[in-house]
Amino acid sequence: MEDLKELVQKFKKTVKVKTGKDFPTNAYEQLWGAICAVFNSWTNERAILYRKMEGIPYEWGTAVNVQAMVFGNMGDSSATGVCFSRDAGTGEDLFNGEYLINAQGEDVVAGIRTPQQITKIGSQRWAELAGVSEEERVAKFPSMEEIMPEIYQELDELQTKLENHYKDMQDMEFTVQEGKLWFLQTRNGKRTGAAMVKIAMDLFRQGVIDEKTALMRVEPNKLDELLHPIFDKEALTQAKVLTRGLPASPGAATGQIVFFADDASEWAAAKKAVIMVRIETSPEDLAGMAVAEGILTARGGMTSHAAVVARGMGKCCVSGAGALRIDYKARTVEIDGVLLKEGDYISLNGSTGEVYLGEVETKEAELSDDFAELMKLADKYTRLQVRTNADTPHDAMVARNFGAVGIGLCRTEHMFFEGEKIKAMREMILAENIEERRIALAKILPYQQEDFKGIFKAMEGLPVTVRLLDPPLHEFVPHDLKGQEEMAEAMGVSLKYIQERVESLCEHNPMLGHRGCRLGNTYPEITEMQTRAILGAALALKKEGVVTHPEIMVPLTGILREYKEQDNVIRAEAAKLFAEVGDSIDFTVGTMIEIPRAALTADRIASAAEFFSFGTNDLTQMTFGYSRDDVASFLPIYLEKKILEVDPFQVLDQKGVGQLIQMATEKGRAIRPELKCGICGEHGGEPSSVKFCHRVGLNYVSCSPFRVPIARLSAAQAALED
Amino acid sequence: MEDLKELVQKFKKTVKVKTGKDFPTNAYEQLWGAICAVFNSWTNERAILYRKMEGIPYEWGTAVNVQAMVFGNMGDSSATGVCFSRDAGTGEDLFNGEYLINAQGEDVVAGIRTPQQITKIGSQRWAELAGVSEEERVAKFPSMEEIMPEIYQELDELQTKLENHYKDMQDMEFTVQEGKLWFLQTRNGKRTGAAMVKIAMDLFRQGVIDEKTALMRVEPNKLDELLHPIFDKEALTQAKVLTRGLPASPGAATGQIVFFADDASEWAAAKKAVIMVRIETSPEDLAGMAVAEGILTARGGMTSHAAVVARGMGKCCVSGAGALRIDYKARTVEIDGVLLKEGDYISLNGSTGEVYLGEVETKEAELSDDFAELMKLADKYTRLQVRTNADTPHDAMVARNFGAVGIGLCRTEHMFFEGEKIKAMREMILAENIEERRIALAKILPYQQEDFKGIFKAMEGLPVTVRLLDPPLHEFVPHDLKGQEEMAEAMGVSLKYIQERVESLCEHNPMLGHRGCRLGNTYPEITEMQTRAILGAALALKKEGVVTHPEIMVPLTGILREYKEQDNVIRAEAAKLFAEVGDSIDFTVGTMIEIPRAALTADRIASAAEFFSFGTNDLTQMTFGYSRDDVASFLPIYLEKKILEVDPFQVLDQKGVGQLIQMATEKGRAIRPELKCGICGEHGGEPSSVKFCHRVGLNYVSCSPFRVPIARLSAAQAALED
Repeated sequence: MEDLKELVQKFKKTVKVKTGKDFPTNAYEQLWGAICAVFNSWTNERAILYRKMEGIPYEWGTAVNVQAMVFGNMGDSSATGVCFSRDAGTGEDLFNGEYLINAQGEDVVAGIRTPQQITKIGSQRWAELAGVSEEERVAKFPSMEEIMPEIYQELDELQTKLENHYKDMQDMEFTVQEGKLWFLQTRNGKRTGAAMVKIAMDLFRQGVIDEKTALMRVEPNKLDELLHPIFDKEALTQAKVLTRGLPASPGAATGQIVFFADDASEWAAAKKAVIMVRIETSPEDLAGMAVAEGILTARGGMTSHAAVVARGMGKCCVSGAGALRIDYKARTVEIDGVLLKEGDYISLNGSTGEVYLGEVETKEAELSDDFAELMKLADKYTRLQVRTNADTPHDAMVARNFGAVGIGLCRTEHMFFEGEKIKAMREMILAENIEERRIALAKILPYQQEDFKGIFKAMEGLPVTVRLLDPPLHEFVPHDLKGQEEMAEAMGVSLKYIQERVESLCEHNPMLGHRGCRLGNTYPEITEMQTRAILGAALALKKEGVVTHPEIMVPLTGILREYKEQDNVIRAEAAKLFAEVGDSIDFTVGTMIEIPRAALTADRIASAAEFFSFGTNDLTQMTFGYSRDDVASFLPIYLEKKILEVDPFQVLDQKGVGQLIQMATEKGRAIRPELKCGICGEHGGEPSSVKFCHRVGLNYVSCSPFRVPIARLSAAQAALED
Repeated sequence: MEDLKELVQKFKKTVKVKTGKDFPTNAYEQLWGAICAVFNSWTNERAILYRKMEGIPYEWGTAVNVQAMVFGNMGDSSATGVCFSRDAGTGEDLFNGEYLINAQGEDVVAGIRTPQQITKIGSQRWAELAGVSEEERVAKFPSMEEIMPEIYQELDELQTKLENHYKDMQDMEFTVQEGKLWFLQTRNGKRTGAAMVKIAMDLFRQGVIDEKTALMRVEPNKLDELLHPIFDKEALTQAKVLTRGLPASPGAATGQIVFFADDASEWAAAKKAVIMVRIETSPEDLAGMAVAEGILTARGGMTSHAAVVARGMGKCCVSGAGALRIDYKARTVEIDGVLLKEGDYISLNGSTGEVYLGEVETKEAELSDDFAELMKLADKYTRLQVRTNADTPHDAMVARNFGAVGIGLCRTEHMFFEGEKIKAMREMILAENIEERRIALAKILPYQQEDFKGIFKAMEGLPVTVRLLDPPLHEFVPHDLKGQEEMAEAMGVSLKYIQERVESLCEHNPMLGHRGCRLGNTYPEITEMQTRAILGAALALKKEGVVTHPEIMVPLTGILREYKEQDNVIRAEAAKLFAEVGDSIDFTVGTMIEIPRAALTADRIASAAEFFSFGTNDLTQMTFGYSRDDVASFLPIYLEKKILEVDPFQVLDQKGVGQLIQMATEKGRAIRPELKCGICGEHGGEPSSVKFCHRVGLNYVSCSPFRVPIARLSAAQAALED
C-alpha cells in the first residue's frame, strides 16, 4: 500500500513536469484526458509508420469506447472468468472455460491462483487428469455450474446465442459482480489446427455455415500441424530449450546425436532413433537424412539443402541454429556452453525451431475423417491442380495419398548419390573426352531407368515431369582425399589428374555457372542418356500394362535456341529409341522458367516449349540477385528493418518475381494458347503464393508431399475468393 | 597437263555416278546446268539455316549473272589487276593498285609473281621502300601508267567516274585482253580506321558527300585503332604467334615478362617495359597493371577484372589465353611447349588477342585533325550524351580530352588499394563491432575525401556520379598468411581471429551475396562516411572556387525500401555536415538499376530516386543467370553453336536485358518525368548498344575513357538513323 502511494506521488510529479499542470482531481476531466489521449495517439509517429506499412488511410481515425467498470472481487458472490463455446485444443463441441471467485481478470491470466472449471464435466475431466478425487473436487474445486447454477445458466445461454450469431467458436470474458453477470468481450477464438478442421466441419454439418464458409474457415498453414508428429504437451513443459534455429521443416523429433551419414545409417539399422547434426548438409548426407528422425544444422536458411530435402521427406528439421559449435573430429557439439557428445539425446521442434536437451515424448500424426472430408470439399471448388515434387517412389506415394495428381518436379540429381551410382556419375564428370563420357553414361543408364520406373509406377496414370540434370557438376565429385584416391584407382588415372579436374570444376559463383541446360548443351550425350532412361522406363512399363505420362523438362533455359537445341536432342534420341524398340510412348517436352530472361522472352520460348514450369527458387535468386546460401548475412537485418516484410524464398514476391510469372504466362499463351503452366519451387506449398498462382491462371502448383493438403486447401480458397 | 586430264576423267565419272547422266558436251547445256545449280542452291540445307539465322525471307530467291570470260593471259598486250580509288591504308586521295602482264586474276592474289604498281608515283614510292634504283625500276618494274599509257588513261577515268558515282572509295578489278580494257568488278573498299576517317572527311570537304553521310561512313569500332599503339606492319610479318587469347583491351604492347605487381613496379621504375602475366588479376595487382605495357591472363573473359581494368586504363590486354601454364613459384610460363622465364620478351595484340614471341616494334597512336573534326561533327547531331567511367583524376582527364561531359560511374572501391588505405579498410571490415568500425572509418574518411577532390577537380563544372561501396567485403581482406599476420598485429588481435573473420566473409556465390547497398543497409556507418567524403570534397572545392555537381549513387537496389533507407542516411548525414560547415552544396541521389527486380519495380523506385543508371554488367549477369567469371566453361560453345550470336557481356542483349532497360525507363518516367537515365556498364562504349540506348531515350551512356570517341560517334549515328 505504501508502494502504491509512492508510485502515485511519482506519477503526479511527472505529469506536472511534462504538462505543466497538476493531475486533474475531477473525474470528468480525467475521463476527457484519457479519451483525448486515445484520439491523439492517431497522429503519433508509431501509428503513422504502422498505417504506412499496413496501408491504412489517415482519414479513418480511431474510436474510443467508454465503459463503466465492473468488479469481480467484491466478495464471494463475485467472480471473473474466460470461456470458449467449443474446445480450442480439440475442437470438441463442448462449452468450457475457467473462473475464479472474488477475483479480477488479471488473476485468471496471471497464474497466482489456480482457476476452476466452469462446467461440471470440464471440472470432472480436470480432476481425473490431476488425480483429484470427486470428493475433494466438489469440496475444493467445484465448477461454476455447481456453485452458481443460475449465473451458469445465463452464461451458457449467452455463449450459445453468441456462437449462433457469429457462426464461429467464441472466446469470451465475463465478470460476476455481487450476483449479476456482466459480459465483457467476445471474439472468434484462436484454435489448434486439429480444432480448426473439426470446428469448421462440425459447424458445416450442424448447418450453421455452408461448405464454402467451412473451407474459408481453415487456415491452410495450420494443416501442417495435423500432418507431422508433435510433442506431448505435458512432456514439453519439463523440457529445457537449448537454442533456437529456423523452423525449416515442421514436426517433432527426438533421438541420439550423430554427425555422419554413415553412422546415422548404422545406428538406425540398430533401431536407434537418431538426430543428424551437421554444420550444413550436402547430397552426400542424403542416406543419413533419410533414416534420421530429424536434422539439425548450424548454417543455412529455410531453403538450404537440409531444409528443402527435409521438407520433401516430411521430416523434422531445424536449420541455421547459429549457436551450434560442431567439432566433427571430436564428435561433439557445444550449444551456448552445453557440451553434447555423439549419442546424447536431443529433441527438435521443426515447427518452431526450438532445440531441446534430452528426450521429449512425441505423438504421431493422425489424420481425422474431418480432414479427409475437408479435402474432398476443397477439390469441389479448386481450379488449380496440385502436384508434388518427388524424387523417390516413397515420396511419390506419400504425396499421392495426400491427393497430389502428378509429379511437377522429379529431380534426377538426388538419384545419383546411392551406392555405385555415384561412382559412375563421377567417372562421367571426370572423363577427359566424349568417348570416356559415353562409357560412363552407359553405366548410369540402367540405374536411371530403374529409378524412373519406380517413380512412374508410383504415379501410374498421372503426369510426371522429369527435370534433366541441373546442378553444377562439382557437386558430385569427391572433394576429400579418400574419395579422390578411390576415383583415381577406379578410372586408372593419377590422383593429380583427378584433383586437377575437381579443381577445374570449381566456380566463383556456381549458382550462375555451368549448370542446367548449359550442361546438356555442352554435353548433349547426358541429355541423350537421360532421355533414353526416361522413355525406356515408360516403354518397359507399357509392356507391363502400366500407363505413364512422361513430361521431359529442360532446366535453366534463358534463350530460345538453347531450348531448341535440347529439344532436338531429346526428340532425336526418342525417335532412335522408339525405332530400336519398335514401340513408342506419348511424351511432351517443356522447360523450367527460372531465369529472368526466359520470362522476358517467354513468347519466343513458347514457340518451341510445350509447357512452362516456374522454378521460383532460382527465379527469386536471380530476380533479387540473392544467393539462398548467402542471404544469412543480411536477410535477418532486412526483415528486422522491414526492408523486406517476409523472406522472398518462403513467400513469393508478387511485385517482382510474380510480375515475371504473370508476364511469362501471358506472353507464352499468346503464342501457344494451350500452354500448360505450373510452378515447382518451394512456393508451391505456401498459401499466399498458391493463391497468386491461381489468380494468374497457372494450371498447377507442385510442392513437397507434406505441403500437398495445404496447397489443395489454398487452391480451393483462391477459387472461392475469385 | 596429264594431271588435268586425269582430273577431268574423275569428275566425269563422278557426275555419271551421281546424276546417272554423262557430263554434257554441249556448251549451252553446261551453262544451263550451272545456272540451275545456283538456283537450286537456294533450297539447300545450309542456305535454309543461314536464312533462318539472318532473317532473310525465302521469297527473295537468288540471282545469276551470266558473263563472257575475258583473258589477261593472252600475251604481253594482256594484263590483269586490282586497284583502289584512294589509299586503303592511309586514306590518301591517290589512285593506286597492282597489275601483272600476261596473267589471270588469281596470279595477282596468289603471290607467285610479284605484281607491279599501276601508277608511276606508286611505283616510285614502292621502289624507294624496296631500295630499287630508278633505272632498275623503269627497266624491270615499270608502272602500267608508263608501259600501257592509253589503257591507264582509260582506267583512271573510269575509277574517277566510279568513285564519283558511288561517292566512296572503290576497290576494283580489271583485265586487259589484247589491248582492250575490261572492267570486272567494283565495290566500296575495305580500309583501316585511319583511312576511314580521312576518306570520309576528305569526301565531305570535296563536296562529294554531306556531313551526315560523312558521319555514317565511319564504323565507330574502327576508331579504336586510332586511339591505341599498333604494331609496325613490317615487324609483324617476322613475328612468331605463340598463342591466341581474347582481345580484351585493344592496342599493341611489347615488353619483358613479370608475374607479380611488385616486380612490375620495380622494373618499370628502372625504365624497363614489362608485360604482366597472371593466371587472373585481382584488385591487388592494380599498381602493377598501371605501370605495365600490357596484361596477359590465362583465365577470365572479356569482362574479367583484367579486361575491365585494362580497358579503363586504355591499356593493351589479352585475357583468357587458355594455353598458358603459369608457375608462379618457378616464375615461368609455358605456352604450347615454349617455356618462357621472367624477363623474357613477349608482345601482345589486344585488338586481335594474339601473343607473339619476343619484341615486336610498336607505333604510338596519333590523333589527326580529321578525327577532331569528325568528333565535332558528331556532337552537332547527337542527342545522347557521353560520360565516362573513371576512378582516378588521370582517367577523368583522358576521358575529358576525348570529349566526355561528366563521369557516369566513379567506383570508390579501387581507391582503397593504395598504400595505407587498404589497412584502414581492412580494419573497418574486420572490426568486431560498430565502435571499432567507426574508428576505422574515421581513418578512411580523409583518404576518400582527397580522392574525391582530385576527381571532382578533373571534372570541374561537370556532373560526377559516385557509386557507394559495392563489392563483397571479402575482396578487400588479406587471404595470404603474411597479410593476415600484418592485420593481426595492426589491430592487436590474434591471427586466429583474423582468419576466422576472413573465413566468415567467404560466400558460396559472392556475386549474389552481401554487397552493394546490402552493405550500406547492414552497416549504415559506411554510407555515412562516404557521403561525408563526397560532399566534404565538394565543399572544400567550393571554397577554392571550383564548381562541382556530385551525384550520389546507391548500388544494387532491388527494393524500394532498401533504397529509401540509404537515401535517408545520405540526406541526414549531408544535413549534419552542412550544419557543421555552415555551407551547402547541391547534390542528387539516385540508384543503379542492375537487379532485375529493380527494373520490374522501377515505378516504385523512381518515387524516391532522382536518377537511374543501368549497370548492364550486373543486369546481364542476373538476367541471364551467368557469372562473368564462370562463363568460360560454356560461352565459347554457345557462340560456336550459335545459341548466342554474340557475347552478351560485350554487346547488349536487346531482347532480354534491353527489355528491362526500356521497361524501367518507361515505368520510372511515368512517375517522375524528369528522371535522368543513363547506362554505365561495359556496353556504354559498344556501338549497337549505344544506339539502343538512344532509341529507348536514355540521357547518357558512360564508358571507359578510350571508348568515349566511339560512343560519341555511335550516338550521332543513332540520332541520324532516327
